[in-house]
Amino acid sequence: MSLQVTFLGTSGAVPTTDRNPSGLFVRREGDAMLFDAGEGTQRQMMRFGTGFDVRWVFLSHLHGDHVLGIPGLLQTMDFNERSDPLTIFTPQGTGRSIRNLIYAIGPEPSYGVDVVEVGPGETVVDAGAYDVRTFATEHRTRSVGYALVEADRKGRFDRERAEELGVPVGPKFSALHEGEPVELEDGTVIEPNQVVGPPRPGRTVVYTGDTRPVDSVVEAASGADLLIHDATFAESSDERARETGHSTAREAGEVADRADVERLVLTHISSRYAGDTGILKAEAEAAFDGRVLVARDGDDVDVPYSEKR
Amino acid sequence: MSLQVTFLGTSGAVPTTDRNPSGLFVRREGDAMLFDAGEGTQRQMMRFGTGFDVRWVFLSHLHGDHVLGIPGLLQTMDFNERSDPLTIFTPQGTGRSIRNLIYAIGPEPSYGVDVVEVGPGETVVDAGAYDVRTFATEHRTRSVGYALVEADRKGRFDRERAEELGVPVGPKFSALHEGEPVELEDGTVIEPNQVVGPPRPGRTVVYTGDTRPVDSVVEAASGADLLIHDATFAESSDERARETGHSTAREAGEVADRADVERLVLTHISSRYAGDTGILKAEAEAAFDGRVLVARDGDDVDVPYSEKR
Repeated sequence: MSLQVTFLGTSGAVPTTDRNPSGLFVRREGDAMLFDAGEGTQRQMMRFGTGFDVRWVFLSHLHGDHVLGIPGLLQTMDFNERSDPLTIFTPQGTGRSIRNLIYAIGPEPSYGVDVVEVGPGETVVDAGAYDVRTFATEHRTRSVGYALVEADRKGRFDRERAEELGVPVGPKFSALHEGEPVELEDGTVIEPNQVVGPPRPGRTVVYTGDTRPVDSVVEAASGADLLIHDATFAESSDERARETGHSTAREAGEVADRADVERLVLTHISSRYAGDTGILKAEAEAAFDGRVLVARDGDDVDVPYSEKR
Repeated sequence: MSLQVTFLGTSGAVPTTDRNPSGLFVRREGDAMLFDAGEGTQRQMMRFGTGFDVRWVFLSHLHGDHVLGIPGLLQTMDFNERSDPLTIFTPQGTGRSIRNLIYAIGPEPSYGVDVVEVGPGETVVDAGAYDVRTFATEHRTRSVGYALVEADRKGRFDRERAEELGVPVGPKFSALHEGEPVELEDGTVIEPNQVVGPPRPGRTVVYTGDTRPVDSVVEAASGADLLIHDATFAESSDERARETGHSTAREAGEVADRADVERLVLTHISSRYAGDTGILKAEAEAAFDGRVLVARDGDDVDVPYSEKR
C-alpha cells in the first residue's frame, strides 16, 4: 500500500519566492487528502501533479496562511465539474468562519461541501484500513493536529516453518496468512499462529500544524513513522517562538526524540531562513537521532513500512 | 515619468502551472497600484519584485479569480508592519462581500483599510498628474473597467524658434516652457505661445477586467497608449465567450482597432491555450494593425509617451 506525502507549501505566515503558505497533500493508495490549504494551494497541486481527487480537507487552525487557498480550490473543483462531495474538518468553533470564507464572494459549489467541526481526541475519518484522528496542539487559537493511523497489518508469514510443517506452497500459504487453519493431506490441521507472527502495526503519519512543543503531540506521535512538526524558528528566536505559539527546530527534535518517531520533517519555515535552513536541521538533529528533513515545496516523502516491526 | 505595467497573473478562471489568476501591478513614478488580485498575487509580487507599497487596489468584479488574493495580501502587509492606509475600490453593491472576504477569518489589519464602491463613469482617484476613472463593462455580474489617464503635459518647446527670437539659452527657456512670458534685454516680450506648442495629452492605460466587447470600452480606450483587454477565447469558442461574458481575441482586436489604441495586450487566457497562444495573437492582429502582446506572468510593459503626439 503506497503512502506518500507531498509538501505543497512550507513557509511560515508570510510566503517567499520559494515557499508557498502551508499545505500538505497525502495520498494513501487511491485516497487523496489535504492537510491545510494556504493561498496558492491549488496551483501547487497543479505544479506537483497531485491530482484534485481530494476526499477530505483537514484544517489545523484558521490562520490565513493555512486556509486562504480553500475558496479558490473549491471553485476550481467546480469548474472541473466535480460531483463527489467534499468534507472539510475544522477545529471546534471555527465552522462558521470557514463557511464565511468559502461563501464570501462565491456561490455554493454544485457538489456538496460539508464543514465538520472537530475537537482533539476524535477519530474523524474511519476508512477501515486506516483512520484519521485529532490531537490537541497549542497555538494561540483553536487548533488541532491530525494523525493518519493505519490499522494493524498481518503478521509475518514464516515460509520456512510452513514448509517444515509440510504445508504445500500455494493457496494454503495464503489461507494461513489470512488467518484460516488448513488441513494437510495426512489430516494434520495447521493453525495460523503456527506460521504467522503477531499482527504488526500499520504506518502512522502525524501533522501538527502550528504548535508549541506539547505532550499531546508526543503522545499522538508515539512511534510514528513520520512526524511533520512546526519548526518556524531556530533556537536564537526561542522567545519569539513562545510568543507566537510556534516551535523551534530544536523543540521539534525533542518532541521527535521523546515520541521515538522514525523520521522528522520540519516545516512552516520562517522567511528569515530563506537563504539557508542548515541551522534548523542541525538543531533538530542535535536533539533527535533519527532522520530529519527540512521540507521544501514539492518534496515527496514516501512512508515505507518500518523495518523494525 | 515612468509608467510600467507588470502582469502578475494572466490566467482565465482556472490557473495553470504557468499562469496565476488575474492581477496587474502598475507603477507610475513613485505610485504603486493593483488592478485585481487573484489568489497568489502576493507571491507573484515577490517573484517579480514589484514592492508592496500599493496605495490603491482597483477591483473589476468579484469573481474569485480576481479577488481571492486580497486577504492574504492584506495580512502580509500587516506582518510587514504597514502603517499607510489602503483603499480598495470595488463595483457598486459589492463592498459588503469584499469586506466579508477580508474579515472572514482574519482580524482587522492594524493599518486602515477603506473599501469604496464605485460605478462606471467616475473619477475614483485624482492624483493631480493623473487620475483613475471607471467605465462600464459587461460581464454577467457587477463590473467596471479602469483607465489611468495622465493630465496633459506641456507642449513641445521650439528651441530653434526661441533662438531665432533672441531668447538666450538658460532659465528663460524653462520659464517659457512653464508658460511664463519673458522679457529680453532689448525690452521685447516673448509670449509662451510663440515658442511652445499646444499641450500634448498624457498617457492612458486601460484595463477592462472580464468583459464582452462593448462600446463603453471603445470609448474609454479611445486613443489609449495601452489597452489590456479580456481575450479568454479564440474565435472557435465565440459562443462560449458570449455565454460566459468574455471576449475572443478577435473581438479584443476589433475593440482596439475601433478605439485606435497604440498597443493591445491580451490577458485572462483560458487554460485551453496553455500550450500555444499563437492563435490568439493571430486573431487579434487580423482585426487590429497595432502591436499585440499575449501577456505572460511576469511581463513588464513600459508605456512610453506616444511619438504621434
